[in-house]
Parts: sequence; structure tokens; C-alpha cells
Amino acid sequence: MAYDISKQELVNLYELETLNDFAIDFMKAVGATDEEASIIADGLMTASQWWHPGQGQGLEKLFRYQRRIKGGGIIPNAPMEWITDGPSYALLDAANGFGYVAAYRAMHRAIEKAKNTGVAMVGVRRSNHFGIAGYHALQAAKQGLIGWSFTNARAEMAPWGSTQVILGTNPWGIAIPRKDTHAIVLDMALTMSGKGMMRWYQQEGRDMPDNWALTPDGRVTTDPASAMDGPLLPIGEYKGYGLSLITDVLSGVMTGALFGQSVFQDESNYNVGHMMLAVSPSAFMKQDEFDNRLEALVDEIKSAPAIDAKRPVVLPGEIEFQRMSERERDGIPVSKETVEGLRKLAAEIGVDCPL
Amino acid sequence: MAYDISKQELVNLYELETLNDFAIDFMKAVGATDEEASIIADGLMTASQWWHPGQGQGLEKLFRYQRRIKGGGIIPNAPMEWITDGPSYALLDAANGFGYVAAYRAMHRAIEKAKNTGVAMVGVRRSNHFGIAGYHALQAAKQGLIGWSFTNARAEMAPWGSTQVILGTNPWGIAIPRKDTHAIVLDMALTMSGKGMMRWYQQEGRDMPDNWALTPDGRVTTDPASAMDGPLLPIGEYKGYGLSLITDVLSGVMTGALFGQSVFQDESNYNVGHMMLAVSPSAFMKQDEFDNRLEALVDEIKSAPAIDAKRPVVLPGEIEFQRMSERERDGIPVSKETVEGLRKLAAEIGVDCPL
Repeated sequence: MAYDISKQELVNLYELETLNDFAIDFMKAVGATDEEASIIADGLMTASQWWHPGQGQGLEKLFRYQRRIKGGGIIPNAPMEWITDGPSYALLDAANGFGYVAAYRAMHRAIEKAKNTGVAMVGVRRSNHFGIAGYHALQAAKQGLIGWSFTNARAEMAPWGSTQVILGTNPWGIAIPRKDTHAIVLDMALTMSGKGMMRWYQQEGRDMPDNWALTPDGRVTTDPASAMDGPLLPIGEYKGYGLSLITDVLSGVMTGALFGQSVFQDESNYNVGHMMLAVSPSAFMKQDEFDNRLEALVDEIKSAPAIDAKRPVVLPGEIEFQRMSERERDGIPVSKETVEGLRKLAAEIGVDCPL
Repeated sequence: MAYDISKQELVNLYELETLNDFAIDFMKAVGATDEEASIIADGLMTASQWWHPGQGQGLEKLFRYQRRIKGGGIIPNAPMEWITDGPSYALLDAANGFGYVAAYRAMHRAIEKAKNTGVAMVGVRRSNHFGIAGYHALQAAKQGLIGWSFTNARAEMAPWGSTQVILGTNPWGIAIPRKDTHAIVLDMALTMSGKGMMRWYQQEGRDMPDNWALTPDGRVTTDPASAMDGPLLPIGEYKGYGLSLITDVLSGVMTGALFGQSVFQDESNYNVGHMMLAVSPSAFMKQDEFDNRLEALVDEIKSAPAIDAKRPVVLPGEIEFQRMSERERDGIPVSKETVEGLRKLAAEIGVDCPL
């Protein structure tokens, strides 16, 4: 079986439908509406099919949702409200509801508008963690549009030349639709890596690359432990710092959400901001022409010889979609730790657990 | 005097107005209209004020323009044509005209549209090198909008895991308007560095960082010479490859320009593509509110203590605008080599040379 999970991790395999149904039942039991539960389950399933369980974006999220709802930080069926709505823009107040749901609604509003005007951006304020950025971008690609999702996040990156964390990893999801096959999907943080990956290196006793994080006093290091309390380093050095700052302006400043050090701090009011951009290629040229030209570029890319024959050149998202196919065939891995925890939690909240 | 130019470079200093007038006269003498000459001179002056002469984006460009016009690759007063024009999009066929002019017109069309609809994207096909990306983004910021300029460029980057160059450095300019002061301007290539900088390291006999470029057979190296024929490395490794690919889709594939390995190859038809995005913050919230929130984020950033007290934290573009102020006071440096060449060329084409 061909998925790459940490050797320390023990997993069970389940069918997609089983996990999806369970995620829906679970979310409804903690207060989500049918629509909310479906969107969230779809996001978690996408993450589970694209990545390994250690990524923490699959069913593991259910623990957090239950805890955050219980604590009042996430409000199911929140009275989300459209604050402003124009030809190519709109702004949604998510009223501390689910980030997945708010971002989903915003991207679908952007898609609808972009179909009319060519291009649209829709922002979200008072939201929560929106899950995986690529999921929201993919919504646009599924309808033949280019999607770009932005969000701010907890401060983990310092302005270039400082160690004081002010900006987030501020992930981007960008999806380009292809005819008759999976979209190109780039799902990436604006940092070189993250604390989760650093912890894994630490557990494995491995050195990390020296461009992942600094020590709290600003020294370069390859020791994950000594950088665990330091700032994550941006992609492209000062460039990634600039991109993260601009992302916070688009998703935080311009939406009315929190930004900088304040976002994701108060458990009862994370007030995360997102921005969704949708672009209709068929505004610019005939759909067929776009499709054919894109395939010509893809052919160029895919025909580039690999440095290491065992690692052929791939498009952004290609490995993730290959993994998705494998998992449709073989089942989706869930770590045993997660399975045990979910069994217990499901019993507590009165949901049947098929795991 | 506080500009940082290579110690090997000898420069003369000139007043902005002198250089600007000369650039206009020069461009008109090689066929540019008054409007074209003004736009190009403004771009060259901005580059001359922001960067050092070695960057090659200042008056040095005049040699190239004259040569490319003579060779038929750039057509002054080209019959540019709007191919399509909708509520939040438009597409300009630049008819092999000046890249600066085409991108300027496209961004101004995007600004005009975004003022009505909130957000707009305007593409350009059959263009030439558009100068500095930040100049075009700045056009939007000068009118209180957020600007983002994309372009494709000559293949110098390989898909991640290959050494075959297919994608360009595909620079981005992003500008965020600030009230009563200079915009935040991020002007960056999607590669860690460029061949020009590598040549400078080579001349200086210095090692370069090992994440700038590979050898032609795909080895990591710190020797500029051995990577001079190899691919430039993207920011954030595979992430920057993805960003460059997506930039080529937006600016090349979706505009009808050339893309991938083909763009910038045929001297008589570079057929470069650009994409301009303009966003109106006042579509999302009151302008005052946006301004105040942005300044609050800027304050957070600027109050971050520096690791090295001699290198305080700066905003993207801040150093460039400082340099601009210094040069307004002290004069703009032009390398003696450039001055001598321009004197000769000006005499040839019958333009008075004040240098």
C-alpha cells in the first residue's frame, strides 16, 4: 500500500463513505445543520484523501470542533450575514460560525459573481480556521474557474530581520481547472515548514533544514528543539514575509477580521479573516482555447526529464490526487489513536461509531 | 552618500528631471509617441530611484529599446487593441508594442473597472518586457487601490525535480496603498535570485547561497560559475515552482500570449503576457476604516525588535522609497559605462545628451 505515513503511526483503513457518514453524524450531534455537516465532512474527507493522518486535517479535527463548540468559540448554525455585496465583491460576517462553512459560502458567492463579471473577490470576517486552503480553491475549479483562497492565521512568522512573531503561515490554495482531469491545486503555507513537521523531525532525532525556523534569539539552526519557540521562516526569505503581510491585509485588514498578533488568540473570538478570489477563464477567451493552451503548458512541464528518475516531475496537487485514487481503492487511513479517541467521544455525545 | 552600488561601479549623479527629460527625448527619437515616452521614462525613473544601476532597469534599458525597435521586435505607436472588455475584465492585444505602455494601460483599465465593480483583472497578450513589476502595481496604490501585476518571462526555472528550464522568474509586483505616505510595494521574482546577481558574485569571487541555482546536471552548488547554465531555484522549493506555473497560466495561457519555453524566444515576436489585478478596499469597508486598520498592522510590524539593531524591520518597498528620497536630494546615479554609451547612441540618433 502506497501511502507515506510516519513509521511510528499505526493506522486502520476505512471506506470513504463510512468516514464521511460518521463525520456528518458527529457534526450534527454537536449542533451543525445538515448543510454545515456536509461541507465540513467533505473538507475533512478531501484532506484525508490528499494527506497522511499526521497532517491533522482529517478526522482529527472532530475533537477540536467538539471542544471549540463546547467552549463557545465556534457557534453551529451561526447567524452569518452578508455585510456588503456588489458586482464583483461581497463580505460575509461569519458570526463565529464554522470556518469551513463561511469560506465555502464565500467562495461559492465569488464563483457566482465571477461567472457574471469575470472576476470576483469575497471576504469573510469573524470566522474560524477554514480547514485546508486547497479545498476552497478547488470549489472554483470544479466549476471551470480559477480559485485562490487566502486566510490569516495565528502569529508564527516574524517580520524579516526580527524574531517577534506577528504574522501567520497564512496559507494559500490556488486551483486551476483542467478539462477531463483533476485540477492543478497548489496548497501551501507561506513558511518553509511548520511546527508539526519540526516536532516530527525532533521525534525522529533528525536535523531539520536550516531555513525552517530560527532560535528565539535569532540564530540559524538545524536543531528542531532549539527553534521550537522561535519564529518559522518564510519562503524566499523577505519575499515570503511580504507575501504573508499582504495576505493579512487582504484577509484580515480589509475584511474587518482581526489581524497581526491578535487573530486566533481569544478562544471565544478567534475572528479569523479569509479572502476568496474567483476568475473565469472564459471571460478572457473561449473555454476550449483555454483548455487546449493549458494542456500544452502541462505537456511541456510533464515532459521535463527528472533529475532522479524515481521522482518524475509532477504538477502541484498531482501526488495528492494520486493518493486520493489509491485511497478510494484501498481505504483511507486513520491513526489508531484517533480511532480510539473518536470511539470514546462518540459514545459521550451519543453518536454511533462505525470505526 | 548612502546608496549601495557595487564597489567596482563608477557613477555620475544627475537630477531626476534631467534624466527624465533625456529619456523622453530619446524614446521620441526612436519612434515613441509623447504618451509612450512619458510612461516609459516614468518607469525607468522609478527603477533608477529604487535600485542601483547594476540592476539594469534604469537608463540602461534605452540601449535595448533602441536595438529592439530597430530589429522590429518592438513597434512604437503599435495599434494596440482591446480584444474583450467586460464588467471586471478586459484583454489587450499589445500588437508587439512597448511592454511598459501595454501594462500601464491594462492596469489603468483594471483600476477604472475596480472602482465600479470592486475588483478587476485585465490581461495583455503580444507584449514585450514590461519593466519593473512594482511600477505597475504602484499605479493602483496611487489611486487608493491594491494592485497586483503578474507577467511571464524567459524560461529560467525548471519544474521542481528537473533541470530543464520551462518557466520564468515571473515577477510579481504587489502594492498596498497607505494614507499620507508611500505604499507598501513588494516587487519580487519567484526565484531566490537571478543570473545577474550570480554574475556579480562570480566577479567578486564569492560563494553564493546553495539555494539559488543548480548545475546543469542537477547538483546543489555554491559556485556561481558552475550553475550559470543551470536552472534558477524557486522560492520555497516546489512552492515557488507552483507559483511560477500559476503565474504563467494567468499571464500567458489565459491571455493568448506565448507561455512556457516559447515566450521571449523569437526576437521579432516575444509575445509576452501580463495580468493586472486591481482591488478597491473601499468596496469592502469605509476608506478611513481600512486606512486605520492598515496603520495598526504597520505599527505592529514596525515595533518588532530587530535581531541586528543596525538592520531595523522594514516594510516591503520601504528601503526603496528611502533611496528615492535620498536620490531626490543627492541625485540619481548612472554608471559611467552607461553614460558613455548613451552619449554615443544619442549622437547617432540625433538627440541632445545632457549627460
